[in-house]
Amino acid sequence: MAGAAKRIILDTDPGIDDALAILLALASPELNVEALTVVMGNCSTAQGVSNALGVLELAGAGNIPVAPGLDRPLLQPLLTAPETHGHTGLGYAQLPPPRRHPANQHAVDLLIERIMAAPGEITVVAIGPLTNLALAIRREPALLQAICEVVIMGGALRHEGNTTPLAEFNVYVDPHAAHIVYHSGLPLTLVPLDVTYQCILTQADVERLLALDSPITRFIADATRFYMEFHDEYQDIQGCVINDPLALALTFAPDLVETRPLHVTVDTHSPLSLGKTMADFYGAWSKPPNMQVALKVQARRFIELFLERMETLARRLK
Amino acid sequence: MAGAAKRIILDTDPGIDDALAILLALASPELNVEALTVVMGNCSTAQGVSNALGVLELAGAGNIPVAPGLDRPLLQPLLTAPETHGHTGLGYAQLPPPRRHPANQHAVDLLIERIMAAPGEITVVAIGPLTNLALAIRREPALLQAICEVVIMGGALRHEGNTTPLAEFNVYVDPHAAHIVYHSGLPLTLVPLDVTYQCILTQADVERLLALDSPITRFIADATRFYMEFHDEYQDIQGCVINDPLALALTFAPDLVETRPLHVTVDTHSPLSLGKTMADFYGAWSKPPNMQVALKVQARRFIELFLERMETLARRLK
Amino acid sequence: MAGAAKRIILDTDPGIDDALAILLALASPELNVEALTVVMGNCSTAQGVSNALGVLELAGAGNIPVAPGLDRPLLQPLLTAPETHGHTGLGYAQLPPPRRHPANQHAVDLLIERIMAAPGEITVVAIGPLTNLALAIRREPALLQAICEVVIMGGALRHEGNTTPLAEFNVYVDPHAAHIVYHSGLPLTLVPLDVTYQCILTQADVERLLALDSPITRFIADATRFYMEFHDEYQDIQGCVINDPLALALTFAPDLVETRPLHVTVDTHSPLSLGKTMADFYGAWSKPPNMQVALKVQARRFIELFLERMETLARRLK
Amino acid sequence: MAGAAKRIILDTDPGIDDALAILLALASPELNVEALTVVMGNCSTAQGVSNALGVLELAGAGNIPVAPGLDRPLLQPLLTAPETHGHTGLGYAQLPPPRRHPANQHAVDLLIERIMAAPGEITVVAIGPLTNLALAIRREPALLQAICEVVIMGGALRHEGNTTPLAEFNVYVDPHAAHIVYHSGLPLTLVPLDVTYQCILTQADVERLLALDSPITRFIADATRFYMEFHDEYQDIQGCVINDPLALALTFAPDLVETRPLHVTVDTHSPLSLGKTMADFYGAWSKPPNMQVALKVQARRFIELFLERMETLARRLK
Repeated sequence: MAGAAKRIILDTDPGIDDALAILLALASPELNVEALTVVMGNCSTAQGVSNALGVLELAGAGNIPVAPGLDRPLLQPLLTAPETHGHTGLGYAQLPPPRRHPANQHAVDLLIERIMAAPGEITVVAIGPLTNLALAIRREPALLQAICEVVIMGGALRHEGNTTPLAEFNVYVDPHAAHIVYHSGLPLTLVPLDVTYQCILTQADVERLLALDSPITRFIADATRFYMEFHDEYQDIQGCVINDPLALALTFAPDLVETRPLHVTVDTHSPLSLGKTMADFYGAWSKPPNMQVALKVQARRFIELFLERMETLARRLK
Repeated sequence: MAGAAKRIILDTDPGIDDALAILLALASPELNVEALTVVMGNCSTAQGVSNALGVLELAGAGNIPVAPGLDRPLLQPLLTAPETHGHTGLGYAQLPPPRRHPANQHAVDLLIERIMAAPGEITVVAIGPLTNLALAIRREPALLQAICEVVIMGGALRHEGNTTPLAEFNVYVDPHAAHIVYHSGLPLTLVPLDVTYQCILTQADVERLLALDSPITRFIADATRFYMEFHDEYQDIQGCVINDPLALALTFAPDLVETRPLHVTVDTHSPLSLGKTMADFYGAWSKPPNMQVALKVQARRFIELFLERMETLARRLK
Repeated sequence: MAGAAKRIILDTDPGIDDALAILLALASPELNVEALTVVMGNCSTAQGVSNALGVLELAGAGNIPVAPGLDRPLLQPLLTAPETHGHTGLGYAQLPPPRRHPANQHAVDLLIERIMAAPGEITVVAIGPLTNLALAIRREPALLQAICEVVIMGGALRHEGNTTPLAEFNVYVDPHAAHIVYHSGLPLTLVPLDVTYQCILTQADVERLLALDSPITRFIADATRFYMEFHDEYQDIQGCVINDPLALALTFAPDLVETRPLHVTVDTHSPLSLGKTMADFYGAWSKPPNMQVALKVQARRFIELFLERMETLARRLK
Repeated sequence: MAGAAKRIILDTDPGIDDALAILLALASPELNVEALTVVMGNCSTAQGVSNALGVLELAGAGNIPVAPGLDRPLLQPLLTAPETHGHTGLGYAQLPPPRRHPANQHAVDLLIERIMAAPGEITVVAIGPLTNLALAIRREPALLQAICEVVIMGGALRHEGNTTPLAEFNVYVDPHAAHIVYHSGLPLTLVPLDVTYQCILTQADVERLLALDSPITRFIADATRFYMEFHDEYQDIQGCVINDPLALALTFAPDLVETRPLHVTVDTHSPLSLGKTMADFYGAWSKPPNMQVALKVQARRFIELFLERMETLARRLK
């Protein structure tokens, strides 16, 4: 299967659910993870690089390069989410300091170099703010033809925001970057809160994983315990929403969701609506669709897939 | 029951579903309709006054005064909805020219005079743009203590807009008026598209009414036939959404919906988000609730109530 | 000359320079002051009504009605200017409590009634926020044909703002009202900071007035002493800018300024630019002019006119 | 003098007045022009690169590298100015096709490499939209400490805009890039329309140059003839405003202007105010200055300096 594996670069701000997405990528034989590129968001870029290295090493994938990217948004002041992801970005999980160094290449340069070296081959899975990708396509417009596909976790269409009443975190952190990517002409698939908030990992799910005693399952349990406390306190949700792994899963299991082609944009004008993603459901703007948007999800099927792959990975690494 | 009847003024831009709300008010013994005040919206104010008079006469309620109000929004250019409500505002229904004249008093003055004459007694059911009410409370701030309650049909919180991708029609027509009313301190109940779009009058419902041959049922059938064509063409909905009668019904049957106290505001800043109503579901703004918002509805129970009352009215006027 | 006197209503938020404009109006035989209508701005409406009554009585014009108007802006929160005009609005001047009561009529109703009773006859000199006038024209659109002319003190085109870096005080207090009036189609003359900031009353001017010992000259000295301290501290200006009297003077001495027909609008979208008045000097918007804008002023000639009329008034009332 | 020459990189969108700035740089022994980096603006980036090469060759400076940069703004759609600068960007001037190729390095990479190689040494003179510089400092934050100084032609503070009623062209083309640079912490000097519109090259000035028959003087005459026609038709100005050479001149003759430290920002929120640069003259925002702003200029002294240097260059190249 390795020959047919889909080549992906994961652009990430790890982040509890980012860490789960990284693990899911490593656990999925359909994928070949070329590199991780890191951006600020859930935590600082420096912390995120360390987290990425740590999670890769935890999963025995220390060979995958981790490139540090932008450390602040284009225009907005830096915003991180310690209340959601903890001060290290990984909740209560504690990883040993990474043994490896990050790549000696900036994330933007890595994206440009790798993608231009294999035109049409590489899918970018962007599960943090879109700052790295936005900068890369402005610096090298030829990327627009060379990227195979971009799967984006971000936005809230009918769902309320998780950061402001209208805005989802990844978009709110850098709405200008989102605007650049959304209107770039790239082939995009958006995975908004409308579907991710249906994908809730429960305490029972975590206990099922813990039945397998392994560093992987203990990491997942420690990381998500913090995340669940946040969801309980701020959003009255039992369990935790695992946004990013769903986006990752769509690269090899697209039928987990139903998508619809829509014209989507993001508000950069209003203090109240800043970072609001809006989809033109009724064609009021008469503009062509600029992305596929996941609007329905087989939530439990996805959670089962996630759990099974984590179990397989845990067994492998026990 | 007359002694206990709730005194209401219906502020309206009739409009097909406004006409149904007027009929429902007249058919409801729990209510005493003091007056109709008219505003631009679904059609011009002059047309709306004529429609209001016509519907009242159709229902044998020619004694109720109809006061013309503002004929344009505060700041926005005039916007009407002939594609939704037809050129007269009443779809394919044709009413004879009204025999009566409108009240010799401006809607704003009528609101002030009647409400100040009976402090705490009168409920305003506002089912059009909020221009009349906004002007009235700025002109006479004592209204803020004297109005019993305001039930507003308007807004779209999680639901997409029906005029722009984010904005509901009544709010979009005059977002500045909505801003004034929302932040006035008045006791408000909001009935947004989130609930009204669950209340669909079907072709079968209309046929059930037509089983009773009466000017009322024929009017409803002719008006809603146009409305259903619009919903089919633009929104892929079979049947038609009867927004305004639901707001009216809440004055006497509040248990049709579940409400939640929320801080709600409206965007007046951004060209893309203009007229977007936004509710702070997670308390991100740390502001106290300024209204009760209907978020769940017993949709079929409401439709049944509406049909039964129309049948009773039709029998009475046969 | 009385027969030919121009009938004016002064819409005002008194205010030090408003008080000077009232005195100039009373000192000018070319004018017949029908009424003062009061709006919030430099001070609260209640305080402004008291100030208006006091200034009229000081000048022996206790017969002129003073009608209280709006006590808050359309959408913006209430903003007054005690740092500029002192806590009473009249700087260090102390007037005896007024003997008369305000008119038993709201400013908006007075504007409508008086203007509709004499179509084409009455000029409105609006030297505060435009809230009263905006409400009046929406409540009675026939005013648009019935008002002779509106002279407005407000705005800053090339000049920086005096409240925010871009916005002048009267516009900033109620930018939505300004937007309504600017785009109403009324015949408007705008007197922005671009010209008023050239009209500086100096300490020497005040001393010249004080050479005439009179309640009027002492009032002017006490009021402007506070105003001069403000200008010195905040804007590094020696003397004080008398914005409002210039607008008043244009009703009978239009040749004090050179005007130019321009399309002018006001920003209501942006938190940074809120209340910015912008003129399309180069025709970029291809819209027809909506007002005459004063862009050059014979500043010293105006100050001399002001001083002479104050001397005449002081002699008359000595 | 060469040892003491100031090292500059000229970031430019050539453009008629850009071409004059390039010539002035080459004619100034106080400067050592390391490279030209090109951005879209007055014309496309490709055209601008060709123009830059052509002007350098015309002036015998074919050894200076020209690096192509961004070809579109960060968020805004591409906007060029053929009505101001002609279809080639150089008015009626016709240069032979350049013999050299552009640098084999992107402008952003060149900026980063050269500046990081000589920390504190290089001054950037940015006379086009700030897109290249904004991208460079986000891609390599260490530039913020390594750039010696940035002199920017752009903005309109008290002066009206030359593109919209409020916005100057360079800022309007990419207001988001301007926002990034203005708030970067870099040592900035801004040269806005407030001073450049006082620096008018007249027909008599051009004729004085033409008294020296040379390719340089003929180029200046042909380029500015188009520019003068534009100024006459759109802005009723006799002669042409040479914005960019003034910014360049400040690198070696800073006493041509008086500057003032100010907090300046740019509006990215409002459709009407987009690209408006606003300075906080009275300290209303209580923010520290982020740039020196040229507010007064010895205009004729500058024009004389420009003419003399062009004459010297023309004689040298005759």
